[in-house]
Amino acid sequence: MSDPGFLASGISSGIKEKNKKDLGMLFSEQPATAVGVFTTNKIKAAPVLISKEKIKQKNSQAIIVNSGNANACTGDMGLKDASDLCKLTAQELGISEKLVMVSSTGIIGVTLPMDKMKTNIPHLVNSLSPMGLNDFAEAIMTTDTIPKIVMKKAMINSKEVKFCGIAKGSGMIMPRMATLLAFIITDVAINPDLLDDVFIEAVNNSFNRITIDGETSTNDMVIMMANGRAENSFFSKESSDYQTFKSSLNALFSDLSKLILRDAEGATKTIYVRVEEAKSNEEAKKIAFQIANSNLVKTAFFGEDPNWGRILSAIGTVDAEIIPGRIDISFDDVIVVENSTSTGMELQAKQILVKKEFQVTINLHIGQGTAEVGTTDLTTEYVKINASYPS
Amino acid sequence: MSDPGFLASGISSGIKEKNKKDLGMLFSEQPATAVGVFTTNKIKAAPVLISKEKIKQKNSQAIIVNSGNANACTGDMGLKDASDLCKLTAQELGISEKLVMVSSTGIIGVTLPMDKMKTNIPHLVNSLSPMGLNDFAEAIMTTDTIPKIVMKKAMINSKEVKFCGIAKGSGMIMPRMATLLAFIITDVAINPDLLDDVFIEAVNNSFNRITIDGETSTNDMVIMMANGRAENSFFSKESSDYQTFKSSLNALFSDLSKLILRDAEGATKTIYVRVEEAKSNEEAKKIAFQIANSNLVKTAFFGEDPNWGRILSAIGTVDAEIIPGRIDISFDDVIVVENSTSTGMELQAKQILVKKEFQVTINLHIGQGTAEVGTTDLTTEYVKINASYPS
Repeated sequence: MSDPGFLASGISSGIKEKNKKDLGMLFSEQPATAVGVFTTNKIKAAPVLISKEKIKQKNSQAIIVNSGNANACTGDMGLKDASDLCKLTAQELGISEKLVMVSSTGIIGVTLPMDKMKTNIPHLVNSLSPMGLNDFAEAIMTTDTIPKIVMKKAMINSKEVKFCGIAKGSGMIMPRMATLLAFIITDVAINPDLLDDVFIEAVNNSFNRITIDGETSTNDMVIMMANGRAENSFFSKESSDYQTFKSSLNALFSDLSKLILRDAEGATKTIYVRVEEAKSNEEAKKIAFQIANSNLVKTAFFGEDPNWGRILSAIGTVDAEIIPGRIDISFDDVIVVENSTSTGMELQAKQILVKKEFQVTINLHIGQGTAEVGTTDLTTEYVKINASYPS
Repeated sequence: MSDPGFLASGISSGIKEKNKKDLGMLFSEQPATAVGVFTTNKIKAAPVLISKEKIKQKNSQAIIVNSGNANACTGDMGLKDASDLCKLTAQELGISEKLVMVSSTGIIGVTLPMDKMKTNIPHLVNSLSPMGLNDFAEAIMTTDTIPKIVMKKAMINSKEVKFCGIAKGSGMIMPRMATLLAFIITDVAINPDLLDDVFIEAVNNSFNRITIDGETSTNDMVIMMANGRAENSFFSKESSDYQTFKSSLNALFSDLSKLILRDAEGATKTIYVRVEEAKSNEEAKKIAFQIANSNLVKTAFFGEDPNWGRILSAIGTVDAEIIPGRIDISFDDVIVVENSTSTGMELQAKQILVKKEFQVTINLHIGQGTAEVGTTDLTTEYVKINASYPS
C-alpha cells in the first residue's frame, strides 16, 4: 500500500478558550491538483475571497485553517490577516505562497488574534504528520460535538487509491452551490478538469442537499486536493475507472454530509425528505427544501408527531405546480396521507417518528421530478445553543 | 352616538376541551358591504374555498367561526361541513345562505365534529349581543394567550363612524397577500370598490408585513364588513373623508398586527426590521423578511446578543443588490456597524436588546427603497409549544 503523501496537524493557538485545538494544517508532500467551491453568500469572509482567487490555478499544496474566529466582516484588516497567514505558512513550509490556501470558521465580525496565530505557525508545521488527520479535524470544530472524518479506497488502473474527507459544521447549514468547511484529499492522479466535474457533481448531490437551519454561512468552502501519489495512469470520462472514482467520491461526500446532519446543533433526529413525481427535479428540490426548512415541520419531528398537515401547508407555499387534492405522504413505509387526506395511520406513523432517522416521502402525481434533502428536527437545545453562542 | 348595528357571540360547543369557547358569530343587523383576502397557500382549507367564492358578491351579513379545528385537508367532507355550517346559520338567523361566510382555525387534517356544532348553532345565535365582541374574540383563539380587539372612531361627513377589528394568531404567521384570521366591522357607508382598495392597502401595510415563524397558514383570512349604519354620505377618493377613513383603517390594522406580534408563540420580544436605501421597496422588503425569518438572528435576539454578523450573513443570502462593504446597522439609535464593520458599540447595543421592543435599521446605501417588517424572537418556548401542539 503506497503512502498517500499527505500530512496533517492540529494544535491550540489560543483563539478558543481552554486550550482547545483551533489551528490546523493539511500539507501534500508534492503539489496537488486542487478544486474548490465557496459560499454563494454575497457577504464573503476574507479567507473565502483569498482562497477563491487562488483555486483558479487548480494547483495547491497546503491549507491553513482556524476555528473560533471566522475572519468575516473584518474589512481590509481581515484580508491582510488572511493573506499574511498564507505568507507565513509558505515561508515555514519552504514552498511558494501561491500554493497555500486559507480557511476560517467561528465568530463573525472580530479580527483574528494574529499575534497568537503567528507564533504558533512554526509549531503547527513541526507537528505535521501522516497520523495528524484527527488533530486537524478537531482543530476545525466549532459547535460540532464530534470530529468528522471519512475514508474510502478504490482500485483505479490496478492501483489502490485512497480518499479522505474531513468536515466541520453543525449549525448555519444550508449550503447553496457551496457548503460548510470540508477538505478532501486523495492520492489519485487525475486530469484537473475531470476532477472539477466529478467534484462539483458530488458537492451538488451531497452538501448542497442538506439543511440544518436554512442559514448559509459567510465562510463555507469545500476544497479537494489530488496529489497523484497513487501513480495510477490518467483515465478518461469514458473509462470504468472514471465510474469507480466518481462513485467513491460520491459515497465519501454523502457520508460526510450524513455526519454533519447527525451532529446538527441540538438535533435529536435526521430526516430525509424525498419528493417524487414533481413537475421537474428543480421543483421537487424547492418543495423538499421548503419542508426541510419549515420550523413547524421540524418542531413536529422533535415532538415525534406525524403532523402531515404542516407538511401539506409547507408544500402549498412553494411556487411549484401541485394538485392540492392529489398529494400522498409516507413516513418510511407507513402511508399517512392519500389524495391529501388522512389514511387513519397516524398511530403507526408515530412509531416511525420515534426513530433517530427516517424518511418522509411526498408523491405529487404531477410528473417525473425527484429530489431528496436531508434535514434535522428543531429543538429547544438548538435555540439555547444559538441564543448564547456568539457567531 | 348611533348604534353600529353589529352583534356578536362566542360559546363553547365542545370542539376544544375544558369548556373553552370555540364557536363564534358576527352578525350585522342589515346586509353589509363585504371585502376579504385569503391565504395564498395553495393548500386551502374548506372554509377558505367557500368564503373566497362568496365574498365575490361583496355583500354579507354574518360569519360563523370556530377554533380548535381548521377544517383543512379534509377533502369533500370538509367542503360539505363548511357549507352546512353556512346553511344552518342562515336558517337560524332567517337570512339568505348567500349572506353567511365561514372560517375555521386549529388542527389540520381532522374533520369537524359537526354533531356538536350543529346542536350549538341555535345557542350561538341566541347569544348574539352588541356586547358579545369579547366572547367572539375568545372563541376564535388557538395558542393565543389574549383576545385581540381594537376599536377606533372617526368623523366622516360630520357623522361618527366606528371601527372594530378582532384577530387571532400567534404562530404559523407569515401572511402572503393574506393573513391569519381577522374580522373588521364598521358602520361606515362606503362604495364597495373604494372599500376594497383601502382594505387591500391596509392589509398589505400591516398583516402582510409581519412574521412570527415564516409559515403561511392554510386558513388565513381577513374579512371586513361595512354596514352603512353611520348614515354618512358616500365619499369619493378625492375627499378628505377618504383620507380620514383610510388613516383610521390603517391605524386599526397596524394595531391589530402589533397585538399579534406581542402575543407570538413563546416570544419575549417584538422587533421591527427596517431596511433603508435599498434598490427598490421590493428588494428592501425581501431583505427585511430574510432577516426577520432567520432562525439565527431570532435566537440571537432571544439571547439579547447584538449579533450583527448574523444579520449581515442573512442579507448576503438574498437575491438583491448590495455593496458587501457598505452596510450600516443600528439597534434603535445605537450604530453598531458602519461600512460592514463594527463601530465597537456592541455593549451599548446590548442595552437596547434587553428591551421588549426595538428597531433594527439596515442602510444599504444603494437607492431609495424602504421597507419595515415586524418579527419576534425564536425561543425555547416556541419549540416546546410546537413540538406538542397538534396543528
